[in-house]
Amino acid sequence: MAKDQKKMVDSITSMDEDFAKWYTDVCKKAELIEYTSVKGCMVIRPYGYAIWENIQSILDKMFKDEGHENVCMPMFIPESLLQKEKDHVEGFAPECAWVTYGGSEKLEERLCVRPTSETLFCEHFKNVVHSYRDLPKLYNQWVSVVRWEKTTRPFLRSREFLWQEGHTLHASAEEAIEETEKMLNIYTKFCQENLAIPVVQGMKTESDKFAGAERTYCIEALMHDGKALQAGTSHYFGDGFAKAFDIQYSNKENKLTYPHQTSWGMTTRLIGAIIMTHGDDNGLVLPPAVAPVQVMVIPIAQHKEGVLDKAHALCNELKKICRAKIDDSNNSPGWKFAEYEMKGVPVRVELGPKDIENNQCVVVTRHNREKTVVPLDKLSEVIPAKLQEVRDGLYQKALENRENRTYKCTSMEEITKALEENGDGFVKAMWCGEEACEDKVKEITGVGSRCIPFEEEHISDTCVCCGKPAKKMLYWGKAY
Amino acid sequence: MAKDQKKMVDSITSMDEDFAKWYTDVCKKAELIEYTSVKGCMVIRPYGYAIWENIQSILDKMFKDEGHENVCMPMFIPESLLQKEKDHVEGFAPECAWVTYGGSEKLEERLCVRPTSETLFCEHFKNVVHSYRDLPKLYNQWVSVVRWEKTTRPFLRSREFLWQEGHTLHASAEEAIEETEKMLNIYTKFCQENLAIPVVQGMKTESDKFAGAERTYCIEALMHDGKALQAGTSHYFGDGFAKAFDIQYSNKENKLTYPHQTSWGMTTRLIGAIIMTHGDDNGLVLPPAVAPVQVMVIPIAQHKEGVLDKAHALCNELKKICRAKIDDSNNSPGWKFAEYEMKGVPVRVELGPKDIENNQCVVVTRHNREKTVVPLDKLSEVIPAKLQEVRDGLYQKALENRENRTYKCTSMEEITKALEENGDGFVKAMWCGEEACEDKVKEITGVGSRCIPFEEEHISDTCVCCGKPAKKMLYWGKAY
Repeated sequence: MAKDQKKMVDSITSMDEDFAKWYTDVCKKAELIEYTSVKGCMVIRPYGYAIWENIQSILDKMFKDEGHENVCMPMFIPESLLQKEKDHVEGFAPECAWVTYGGSEKLEERLCVRPTSETLFCEHFKNVVHSYRDLPKLYNQWVSVVRWEKTTRPFLRSREFLWQEGHTLHASAEEAIEETEKMLNIYTKFCQENLAIPVVQGMKTESDKFAGAERTYCIEALMHDGKALQAGTSHYFGDGFAKAFDIQYSNKENKLTYPHQTSWGMTTRLIGAIIMTHGDDNGLVLPPAVAPVQVMVIPIAQHKEGVLDKAHALCNELKKICRAKIDDSNNSPGWKFAEYEMKGVPVRVELGPKDIENNQCVVVTRHNREKTVVPLDKLSEVIPAKLQEVRDGLYQKALENRENRTYKCTSMEEITKALEENGDGFVKAMWCGEEACEDKVKEITGVGSRCIPFEEEHISDTCVCCGKPAKKMLYWGKAY
Repeated sequence: MAKDQKKMVDSITSMDEDFAKWYTDVCKKAELIEYTSVKGCMVIRPYGYAIWENIQSILDKMFKDEGHENVCMPMFIPESLLQKEKDHVEGFAPECAWVTYGGSEKLEERLCVRPTSETLFCEHFKNVVHSYRDLPKLYNQWVSVVRWEKTTRPFLRSREFLWQEGHTLHASAEEAIEETEKMLNIYTKFCQENLAIPVVQGMKTESDKFAGAERTYCIEALMHDGKALQAGTSHYFGDGFAKAFDIQYSNKENKLTYPHQTSWGMTTRLIGAIIMTHGDDNGLVLPPAVAPVQVMVIPIAQHKEGVLDKAHALCNELKKICRAKIDDSNNSPGWKFAEYEMKGVPVRVELGPKDIENNQCVVVTRHNREKTVVPLDKLSEVIPAKLQEVRDGLYQKALENRENRTYKCTSMEEITKALEENGDGFVKAMWCGEEACEDKVKEITGVGSRCIPFEEEHISDTCVCCGKPAKKMLYWGKAY
């Protein structure tokens, strides 16, 4: 059967042969995206967009449960507004797309298509925040942003991408820092529980902070090929932007005060993380929480009397407890198995004449292809358990991959050796705190600093690079 | 009390005094929008955006129930792609915003920020449609678009606005026309049932069609001031775009065939329509289906023992059946009444010590300020009925306004006289079918053709303008 399936569905490159090609094959063959004539931009097709809709709906609820409100800012930023905060404009101007004409008229001032919206939120905060009673402001928006990247890849790095950007304003530094950390924890929870992707929580080093931030927190995941992927970031701005934009409020003592600010974001890049964490040589494997179809019902010998009726009835029952669908097309069962494995549907239910005779069906989980014969009257109990099993299985597998590919190193030689012998992965090593050492480690071994983890370990006393006393433990890795 | 309330909430211009100023006052004071330094663009604030989220969630479900799938196309269109369909580019090029630089590099080909996405969908259809088995394609996307307007107004005409654009591709003309009409009916149902806005269904005349369409269907609503507003459009393209973009599929006889296409859209303009249909001198009045808060609970004498506890308990009960909220701030009840009248909350529930003694509360409907004393144990029955009453009351009032302001006219003189005597409104009058007469009627009387209604009446035998035999009845009006 396996061979037969291979023939029926367009084959994809194997992961071990060429991971990058495997990735784009999956993006295309699972019908997540299609290329366009707009360089570096893509169409997100219905199956890919449905994953994003599920991500949105879960995250949006998490944000709202914490009191955040959605808003919508313009997509354009006048150049003068972007320039108000110096570090920020330096960071973003080189990758801005610039609108210079409206119809046939040249604009007096050019507008950039938002690469991020701190400046617009600041302008708005200045207009609506006057008193301590107006604080905190807990805002979020779901929009697309544009960054003019040179080399692009679907979901991972595209000139336009979809994201959410939270922007909040607080009376005190403590409260703003608490918000920054809270949102990082929400991101962590979402990645681990809903996407089944284990992440390392940490802080970016000075050189790797968001343009204009005092602190950038992040979560870092390790992909199947041993490369690191930043899955979400949360920034604490202090009152730097407030000062640049002259946002002040009267505090309880009626004194004008600068508020403290945060921003945090997650993007369609998460879909890339899902593909590269859970996928295999048969295609996509989706965590149930965000899978457009959680259970696919496949009738066997559907031309035989009663099979289709029974399969439809079963699917309708399943729809009450999960996102279920039936494929009653004339394609062969083998073709269907391969098709929905390619599309990463977490669970399939097979139902044929013999099953009907025995009041049972066959339940197959995508990630391990395990088959279970289930009595029909037990199905509504078994399916939720199976979906949980898939999530847990995916998480466990990803965690094992990360652990197998995390190397504690005390010298540059150890780093090089570990990577050579075991392939790319996370390196844990000590650091003196100097940017020069970050640069040198990257130059010599190829791994850059990913973050200072919240849970630091003591690997050695000295910096892995210069040998001076170590100040921090860093995670290092090659990044997507 | 009324006077007291007026003082406490910033007063707004009265509708009769200056309708345009009343409109922008309401937009600002109800905290729907805020202006920005980006000319012609606005911030949609949380209360305004929550209305849009409710509109989205109802419409999105209606679309999906009919088999449509959401996708996401790039926001940029290369100039050469836009130019492929001649009528289309002529219609849109004058109002495109053009990106000419990416970072510091001049682009080889300039990109317009999508004013609408037919060209991108066509390019994609060409890539993914090959056989009759690939049809129909029923796609939709929720995005923002940009049109470089000279004069702008919040929600009604802004350089960037939010919308949904449906794009579908069908094997036959009949099927595509059926889709075009089906979506217009869905828009009609949504406007009338959910927004309580009566609309006229019709077809645009030749001169008023969407750029590139064979037919443009529309729904037209009449605002409180007698001006017409196009609330939604649905276009049938025939195979014109398919030919321009060379989209062909093999039909069942294995012959290459051009498919037939539609597109249809609704925008944040609907929020403007809600304001101008239902609003009054106390501010916004929201139809319950899209109101962010449907019921506001206001404690009276809340410093007295037990009042706040009881009010919170009541609000928690209400949350099970509707979007309810409580204002337990220290502002006076009078201030709160005025505030939530300004914000158009459909129903408020007042609860004070005497009410608690009598196991009752006072229910006030926003649109007519009717007060009802309701026993607490009947509240969960009364509230849904009251919300329905508000929707029905709003619809009835809007319908009466439209009927009072719809004038049957048989000559130019009658049009001028009707408008002068009764104010702006819909004019029903016969038309010969010539564009010259449409232009002349507009020039002389000020009203332009709005649509050829599905339900035509016979007003007279001859064209209201030239006196030649009439071919159609038109709705005429001044348009937003």
